[in-house]
Amino acid sequence: MQEESRTPSDPQGEPRPRAVRRDPFAWLDEARLSRECAGLVRTLRHRPADSELLDLAGNDYLGLTRHPEVTGAAAGAARLWGAGSTGSRLVTGSTALHAELEAELARFCGFEAALVVSSGYAANLAALTALTGRGGLVVSDAGNHASLIDGCRLSRAETVVVPHAVPDAVAKALDGHAGDALAVTDTVFSVDGDAAPLAALHEVCGEHGAALLVDDAHGLGVVGEGGRGAVHAAGIAGTEGVVATVTLSKALGSQGGAILGPARVIGHLVDTARTVIFDTGLAPAATGAALAALRLLRREPERAVRVRSAAARLHGELSAAGLRPAHPDAAVVSVRAPSPGAAVRWAADCRAAGLQVGCFRPPSVPDGISRLRLTARADLSDAQLAAAVATIVRTAPEGAAG
Amino acid sequence: MQEESRTPSDPQGEPRPRAVRRDPFAWLDEARLSRECAGLVRTLRHRPADSELLDLAGNDYLGLTRHPEVTGAAAGAARLWGAGSTGSRLVTGSTALHAELEAELARFCGFEAALVVSSGYAANLAALTALTGRGGLVVSDAGNHASLIDGCRLSRAETVVVPHAVPDAVAKALDGHAGDALAVTDTVFSVDGDAAPLAALHEVCGEHGAALLVDDAHGLGVVGEGGRGAVHAAGIAGTEGVVATVTLSKALGSQGGAILGPARVIGHLVDTARTVIFDTGLAPAATGAALAALRLLRREPERAVRVRSAAARLHGELSAAGLRPAHPDAAVVSVRAPSPGAAVRWAADCRAAGLQVGCFRPPSVPDGISRLRLTARADLSDAQLAAAVATIVRTAPEGAAG
Repeated sequence: MQEESRTPSDPQGEPRPRAVRRDPFAWLDEARLSRECAGLVRTLRHRPADSELLDLAGNDYLGLTRHPEVTGAAAGAARLWGAGSTGSRLVTGSTALHAELEAELARFCGFEAALVVSSGYAANLAALTALTGRGGLVVSDAGNHASLIDGCRLSRAETVVVPHAVPDAVAKALDGHAGDALAVTDTVFSVDGDAAPLAALHEVCGEHGAALLVDDAHGLGVVGEGGRGAVHAAGIAGTEGVVATVTLSKALGSQGGAILGPARVIGHLVDTARTVIFDTGLAPAATGAALAALRLLRREPERAVRVRSAAARLHGELSAAGLRPAHPDAAVVSVRAPSPGAAVRWAADCRAAGLQVGCFRPPSVPDGISRLRLTARADLSDAQLAAAVATIVRTAPEGAAG
Repeated sequence: MQEESRTPSDPQGEPRPRAVRRDPFAWLDEARLSRECAGLVRTLRHRPADSELLDLAGNDYLGLTRHPEVTGAAAGAARLWGAGSTGSRLVTGSTALHAELEAELARFCGFEAALVVSSGYAANLAALTALTGRGGLVVSDAGNHASLIDGCRLSRAETVVVPHAVPDAVAKALDGHAGDALAVTDTVFSVDGDAAPLAALHEVCGEHGAALLVDDAHGLGVVGEGGRGAVHAAGIAGTEGVVATVTLSKALGSQGGAILGPARVIGHLVDTARTVIFDTGLAPAATGAALAALRLLRREPERAVRVRSAAARLHGELSAAGLRPAHPDAAVVSVRAPSPGAAVRWAADCRAAGLQVGCFRPPSVPDGISRLRLTARADLSDAQLAAAVATIVRTAPEGAAG
């Protein structure tokens, strides 16, 4: 994924002949056929408000998105502040509610300052485009999320992709670079749920005078003391050269993203980050919901413990049944499938049995291997976990066992 | 803007000497000083819920963001569906509410299908990265919004920037190109509020077998019959080679964006667009609010007429007073200022007199000229318009008059 993605002009790696034609989108039919043959066509499935499926696919790790305090805060914020923020954060899109969330989020995660934007994707684009650029070097983990990859592309910095979770490879890439440098990694990788070696990366960056940007989307609310996130757990939150991004749409059950870092970094983002300047501020409802979820998590830190133990149990029982789940360092438990088609059928069979699981296929998997992706939640009961495991094992395709 | 933006590694267009150092963000202080000298430092101003300022800065063109039907829909959706959508549209982030909004939005604007994403910025990235790519050609208007520019960069297509609103320049750029081609333009430009020559651009694209992508962020709800937007008004909505993007955060008073086009284009985006696949679906509150606003606009089409006449009145009275507002083709009325510093002081003086206006400085202005940016609203009274004009004229700096 990171080195090259297929483009519509080049769906099979071969140039398409040009014909004089009237229909500028004729190539779409051809591209669709290619995806159909490869088992890569998607359909949006619009869920009802009262789905009866057991959900092991969503990212509502702490079970807060339907918590009455959180939905009540969303509703209250919409009524008090309006349905939208009405403009860029720099014009009319900043409210006292945004400032309140930013202050509490920064304090909770151990950073000096925070800046809330409309998505985690936008947060990563903001950090990468504002904190590096032409002449700079970005050293990027091969397993990084698409939004980090897109941020690297947009930044115009030279980007070196290094093997997954190997601090020595980062050191080697930084050695001898003559300009500004920044290493970037997910803290918990979204596909396999494994953790990055943050302490070692921080040391390597310190030795090289490089900044460290970490995306804690899957760590916040799940990892570390009281769910303060993987950066806090690694003891590097609030240090001089570290900037983190988080999402408000996973553990905090809302929508949006944020950048956390030293105040001068946040000030720089306000002045220069394109997804801050050129995007509408986060809606008040989403801002208020995230704030309520954060306060709930502070009051009930055991939610972070519960989601981790649910993930560990999923891993243990699926392993015992002969499947090959990746070891979970947070809430994501990933199980390899023999092919994209087998993954789709496996997920469909689970669904028919009342269980919703994620199904990750190219281009959502950096190594091209399709997977079922399960997400643990703090509010799953023992009975639900047992039922989920039984269904996944019973529907497993040939070739899924290790 | 479009050709090159300053990067942090290169804040003054000159290479910075490298020193061995421990602080990877030392360059931020230097960059801030440069911006301070250029009058380009921003401060987030967090507004209260009950601001007493008269707002001519926000993009709530129809005055719907605080309408009780719209905020009530946001609140209701949060309570019924949850505070967040819990995942990518491809996993758990699609609800029947999203589908309902997409169907009604497509029908209203005259397109076959629509796809809702988390912001207008994300909509533009989705369209550009999925509908063009390496080997393709994008012909981009010099006045295009930053999100279109970033989409061009991310697409990896060859991008040719053509003079602002000149169809012949687009034709010339398309002449002789041997691969897929797409022309891209705002329908109403965000800085000066002028309209693109859509019918002529559509003809040029048709002659060249090129697709036409138009960003109707400032047209939807304001331009055309009943606010159906500039694409509908130009008679090209729903035609084979035309794709539009819109925002839900301006006239519709909410948050989010959408792509509108032929069903096969929307299907292609679901399968391939990175900001669709790798971003969390729009929150239910924002989705429900946009849907309620759309239904309100259908019921009260005169709101679109009112916002246009308010803009025309602002333009007429400011011109009569000797200032130099750009002719407004929609809701935005832009007034040139002699310098970034003068623009900031002018906006501050307005603010001190109870009027909030936008202040656009580099990098938000493609031509480097700083401006006051006024936005008309459907719910401004005659007295409010008169007071706004009086304040702007009274506080105008030397050199602002024509």
